[in-house]
Amino acid sequence: MAQVDYPEPVRALISHLRQLPGIGPKSAERIAVWLMQQGGGSTLLFAEAMQRAASLVFECGTCGFFSTEEHGCAVCDGNQRDSRVLCVVEQPTDILPLERSGAFRGHYHSLRGRISPLDNVGPEDLRIGALIERLKSGVFAEVILALSSDVEGEATANYLGEILAGFPGVEVTRLAQGLPAGGGLGNADELTLMRALQGRVGL
Amino acid sequence: MAQVDYPEPVRALISHLRQLPGIGPKSAERIAVWLMQQGGGSTLLFAEAMQRAASLVFECGTCGFFSTEEHGCAVCDGNQRDSRVLCVVEQPTDILPLERSGAFRGHYHSLRGRISPLDNVGPEDLRIGALIERLKSGVFAEVILALSSDVEGEATANYLGEILAGFPGVEVTRLAQGLPAGGGLGNADELTLMRALQGRVGL
Repeated sequence: MAQVDYPEPVRALISHLRQLPGIGPKSAERIAVWLMQQGGGSTLLFAEAMQRAASLVFECGTCGFFSTEEHGCAVCDGNQRDSRVLCVVEQPTDILPLERSGAFRGHYHSLRGRISPLDNVGPEDLRIGALIERLKSGVFAEVILALSSDVEGEATANYLGEILAGFPGVEVTRLAQGLPAGGGLGNADELTLMRALQGRVGL
Repeated sequence: MAQVDYPEPVRALISHLRQLPGIGPKSAERIAVWLMQQGGGSTLLFAEAMQRAASLVFECGTCGFFSTEEHGCAVCDGNQRDSRVLCVVEQPTDILPLERSGAFRGHYHSLRGRISPLDNVGPEDLRIGALIERLKSGVFAEVILALSSDVEGEATANYLGEILAGFPGVEVTRLAQGLPAGGGLGNADELTLMRALQGRVGL
């Protein structure tokens, strides 16, 4: 007797779900079954949302954030922004938390990733060429590297540091490292404490 | 200055993704960004797979498995099945592992869930009425309760046990509980060992 399996449309859906980041084979199966059990209407609305996002949203050629217009975006076109400061982030998702902090009102540049040899991501996969083009305009006086404080983030910061040395008029800074807000010393790991000590500031 | 946020189509996609089982707000954002970065073509194919699954796949009215036909399914219509044995499972996903075990060649009945007051799932939400209708046909000599060995599975088994007592011609059995294959005694928890001892069989 032939082995019983899911109908082909369900198998195709599962194989698409498995490609999503953080979704394993078991989760993909569970999500597919959940979608099937929601009834067709709700799943069709979901598919439509996906199609709308895929067709209507572009990557801003300047900063790398999402935009519904082919040129420009809500971040780059916002007025009252300090046009002399550029904040370099790894992902477009990093822009919203920085905006919410209220501590930065300059421009952004998303690299669309970070250097990570284990994931086969090299400098040529990042939006570094677009960054150099923006710096050549000469309007920026400071570049803030707002990258992760892990190995890949450090490697990307070091690589960018060498390139940015070619723009002597541009000051290059990076985010402070230290104790997170609300965290006691008991919860901080040794590396965090070491960096908090090294970066200590006068009262 | 207005707070920057994702364009509306991206926000709509994130809110759909957040409803999926096991997907939190952070994962939903990460998956949406990943989909956006795949480029439109790949996301449109995904949406199409979702639409095909939603439009072409039905729940079999008899066993509850997925089917591409409005009546019947690959499981119910398979020949060479033992028509006297019915295996009751919680989810349609439980059918494939049982099939793969090769140890069962009877018919199936998916309840589409299990009794779980914490999740607001009561007996009336399950396919118990359809189960009773199938048993009334009188062809089944045995019902195997292949439910989870946790609190909700036990509660569902007890509830079904009372209902099935109304069919005196039907023998009701359940899956054995004990050591999993390949597991040493050191890895087994106390409850598993207790059940393995209680269910010990002659050599």
